[in-house]
Amino acid sequence: MRITFLGTAGSWPTKERNASAIALDTERELLLLDCGEGTQRQFFQSTSSFMRVRRIFLTHFHGDHFLGLPGLIQSMCLNNRTEPLDLYGPPDSREVLERVLSLGYFTLRFPVTIHPLAPGATVELDGVTVRTAEALHPVPSLAYRVEEAPKRGRFDGEKARALGIRGAHFARLEAGETVVVNGRSIPPEEVMGPPRAGRSIVYSGDSAPSEKIAALAHGATVLIHEATTMEELESQANDWGHSSARQAAAIAREAEVGELFLTHFSARYKELEPLEQEARALFPGSRTARDLLDHLVRQP
Amino acid sequence: MRITFLGTAGSWPTKERNASAIALDTERELLLLDCGEGTQRQFFQSTSSFMRVRRIFLTHFHGDHFLGLPGLIQSMCLNNRTEPLDLYGPPDSREVLERVLSLGYFTLRFPVTIHPLAPGATVELDGVTVRTAEALHPVPSLAYRVEEAPKRGRFDGEKARALGIRGAHFARLEAGETVVVNGRSIPPEEVMGPPRAGRSIVYSGDSAPSEKIAALAHGATVLIHEATTMEELESQANDWGHSSARQAAAIAREAEVGELFLTHFSARYKELEPLEQEARALFPGSRTARDLLDHLVRQP
Repeated sequence: MRITFLGTAGSWPTKERNASAIALDTERELLLLDCGEGTQRQFFQSTSSFMRVRRIFLTHFHGDHFLGLPGLIQSMCLNNRTEPLDLYGPPDSREVLERVLSLGYFTLRFPVTIHPLAPGATVELDGVTVRTAEALHPVPSLAYRVEEAPKRGRFDGEKARALGIRGAHFARLEAGETVVVNGRSIPPEEVMGPPRAGRSIVYSGDSAPSEKIAALAHGATVLIHEATTMEELESQANDWGHSSARQAAAIAREAEVGELFLTHFSARYKELEPLEQEARALFPGSRTARDLLDHLVRQP
Repeated sequence: MRITFLGTAGSWPTKERNASAIALDTERELLLLDCGEGTQRQFFQSTSSFMRVRRIFLTHFHGDHFLGLPGLIQSMCLNNRTEPLDLYGPPDSREVLERVLSLGYFTLRFPVTIHPLAPGATVELDGVTVRTAEALHPVPSLAYRVEEAPKRGRFDGEKARALGIRGAHFARLEAGETVVVNGRSIPPEEVMGPPRAGRSIVYSGDSAPSEKIAALAHGATVLIHEATTMEELESQANDWGHSSARQAAAIAREAEVGELFLTHFSARYKELEPLEQEARALFPGSRTARDLLDHLVRQP
């Protein structure tokens, strides 16, 4: 799994930061989480093509999270896309997205399906499951967890060899079969560790600190949480349905995630180092995202 | 008058070129001609603030010419704009722009007025007149001419002094009054040249070569004409309602304009030098526009 931050600005873009969008390559398909204005152009600066995007998950319908969508879809049309595109979002998605799909003149030549999701909904995709939770924001808003299917346990090669297992038996045990060696039945559990959880990414979208997001993020490999402000403006941020860097770190610590990326920075912060420091004081595995940063998510 | 090219890409953006938008500072107010996706962010790279934009003239409703509008307007809201904003466009403007103004959640706290314009319509603004002509494109499309009011003629100081005109008489003659010197009436015409045309900018928007645009552009100080392709793809370009660099130059020559800027380049052209050369062969005063290029329009 590979995350590419296409935009890390909060509310409106800056010279250095585009509006919100995250490309998530699951190794089976390319997902997009939010699609702020300018996302199609950010793709040209990245190593991925927007033509590969198979599904788009939108957190909510404030402009900085979805206004790149009409342009992206229209450019897909101009580039002769025929593959289907699936759009997922909060319960109000159909109304907003139908407007997006009928803005100005263009001919949609590929199927686009709109999937409004309730908080708590689950979507099964090829190789990953997407779960939602309600975010704390003034308009209907979702946080998303994208999680790989559990992987089989680690094969204990040394133990297997000591039991006399050879050649084709390895493959049969790995496939979950019991093998017979020297007259003795050896079930896979004897030489393979327990199934391991797949990698998981949680994206908060815009939210004040939320117990629902902490629960959704429990044990996640990577949490991407908004940090619109620093602690100094925390109460103001919370009033608008946003979090401080400190509060994002507190969620990461509570949820016992592997790593935390902060994003959605207010334009008032030219330098992000202070936000990173503020988060690290509470959760050492904190980093600020930057536009076009690529991050390979490793199996824990 | 100062032109800032905010985006020079045709159809979809590239790494180097944003979708179409041109800021035109008339010295009285800041106008925007088209507003492709990403225009608000391009402003941050320029020397102007998008908060100063008073009026936006849209050529047509293909995405690359107007999809920056919802984000721009929503960012104006977030930045507490209270000044009115006037939107002008082709006859179908009301339907499209009303959708733009109701996309997602935001509170419009300043007055926005939509002005659909017929081809040939004229709009009188502070210090400039805007005239429209129909462009040759598959959807309702306008070209615009923005022209300053005529300026008074040049004052012939030498002749005036020879006639014995002194001090306060200069100002009265310049204001159009007749003065009496040594018992002789001297009307302003005697010491001032004829009124001079104001500076004028014509913007084609998207169009195949059009006699109507040539007529609109007659004698313009600057013509900004689309040049989606080079001559090699001319017939294909024309089929889609676009022009080649050569054809844009032919319009400039026919219209006897002062300068020609080419814009709206197909993504296939990484280098623009060949387009410039193709245009210069026909009209030497041709240049290719570049994103963020500033051009001061001089009185001819």
